[in-house]
Amino acid sequence: MTAQPLGGRELAARIRARVTELAGARRAGGRAPRLVIVTATDDEASAWYVRSLASAAGKVGIDCDVADLGPLATAGDITARLTALSQDDAVDGVMLQTPLPAGLALAEVSGAIDPAKDVDGANPLSLGRLAVGRPAYAPATAAAVVALLDEYAVDLAGARAVVVGRSAVVGKPLAHLLLDRDATVTVCHSRTRDLAAVTSTADVLVAAVGRTHLITPEHVRAGAVVVDVGTNPTPDGGLAGDVDPAVASVASALTPVPGGVGPVTTALLLQNVVD
Amino acid sequence: MTAQPLGGRELAARIRARVTELAGARRAGGRAPRLVIVTATDDEASAWYVRSLASAAGKVGIDCDVADLGPLATAGDITARLTALSQDDAVDGVMLQTPLPAGLALAEVSGAIDPAKDVDGANPLSLGRLAVGRPAYAPATAAAVVALLDEYAVDLAGARAVVVGRSAVVGKPLAHLLLDRDATVTVCHSRTRDLAAVTSTADVLVAAVGRTHLITPEHVRAGAVVVDVGTNPTPDGGLAGDVDPAVASVASALTPVPGGVGPVTTALLLQNVVD
Repeated sequence: MTAQPLGGRELAARIRARVTELAGARRAGGRAPRLVIVTATDDEASAWYVRSLASAAGKVGIDCDVADLGPLATAGDITARLTALSQDDAVDGVMLQTPLPAGLALAEVSGAIDPAKDVDGANPLSLGRLAVGRPAYAPATAAAVVALLDEYAVDLAGARAVVVGRSAVVGKPLAHLLLDRDATVTVCHSRTRDLAAVTSTADVLVAAVGRTHLITPEHVRAGAVVVDVGTNPTPDGGLAGDVDPAVASVASALTPVPGGVGPVTTALLLQNVVD
Repeated sequence: MTAQPLGGRELAARIRARVTELAGARRAGGRAPRLVIVTATDDEASAWYVRSLASAAGKVGIDCDVADLGPLATAGDITARLTALSQDDAVDGVMLQTPLPAGLALAEVSGAIDPAKDVDGANPLSLGRLAVGRPAYAPATAAAVVALLDEYAVDLAGARAVVVGRSAVVGKPLAHLLLDRDATVTVCHSRTRDLAAVTSTADVLVAAVGRTHLITPEHVRAGAVVVDVGTNPTPDGGLAGDVDPAVASVASALTPVPGGVGPVTTALLLQNVVD
């Protein structure tokens, strides 16, 4: 068997086309939609991601500013800026880029982002609302996983879904999104005993841990659908997923890295800005 | 095998003793701690529970008022009262009792409870904070399950925990509490296919669905620890759990109903008022 590749580029292009249209209408109506990305790091991978996001925003007609507070910014500096941007009527979306200065957790400061502008679902209130079925922006990566599964008509109701990774930005919100779609959901993590025994129960397996090729064919039930959220840098400057490509010999479908979840994530983030 | 009964009355008594001491100190210092329970229903079981909670509060030295808005209260009425109580310096804890008037979900109005007074963890922000590891009150029932497991030294790290029920007040917050304790957590619900196949993977099985004796010996792995959150009224005026008592022949330990999770829930709720 060779797994069907669940590419995300076409879906992302369709989402971006819709966003371009909406942003154009807003621009014609007086003001282009505006996203502000707050950064507080000198991490190079982060800077690269922010540049690519700003470029993607520009292409769909969204103005994008980067507010760089520098790696010495305090929690007070960051929350003050997030609060000001939340109150600024000329700003539609606010995103706080990680990593943050040492010792500072995203959830400690992201509460200062107005949920109505929290386009990457970073505020704990957004996660809580998501969990109880109230309107809220989900973290774009988690939303992208479900959007990709929908794109390929993967049936989630009653399916056994296993999420590897319990982060506040992917694993936990994704668990709620999958539960909301009537999947039976298991969350695994670094302390899970016999990971392969758990993951091989999955009809739908999502890897979101950030460890290159952690998921091997032994972790996957024959015919499972596998979604790879990992974007681990390789020595040659490329990207590797959390899923060993050999899994394609066992799974019925597998998202590529790059070109799977990533482009959909970016497109959904931009969609949240114009929504 | 006959399962060890994991009774909650002793633990509850110890918690109440501590609360009595703290409430007495507060009373001596000028003002007794005060809990206000907001109700908007003429449901009899709810009224019984509120009376028993008020009585329990009185016994530990907590003043408890019931604000009965009646079954015709609107969302606006309820949020206005919750907001006023949140701002009232003479009130330490605010609880909104369910059921609410027809068509109104708890999460639609519970956002009006100040998280610092949200002693039953009803505000979606409390759930979101819980999920990301920020300080927050957990719903007392979910916290009681973990407290009982701790009382009997059940090891959660690396254990496979299965929660049956995905409610915002028990199943979902409990999943986060168990994840936080390094369990591998699965959430099942009414749409789960082959429930017994999933539940029988559990080292720790928690039933929180509100269906009398749904969990039978066929659902339980030999030696599993089983926690029964169900409190279903029986025709003769008693209480029945979600777990068939015959499970005691398979499980290594089982919480009784009544006398298991219930008393610990009440004690933790009162503890949250004085904390």
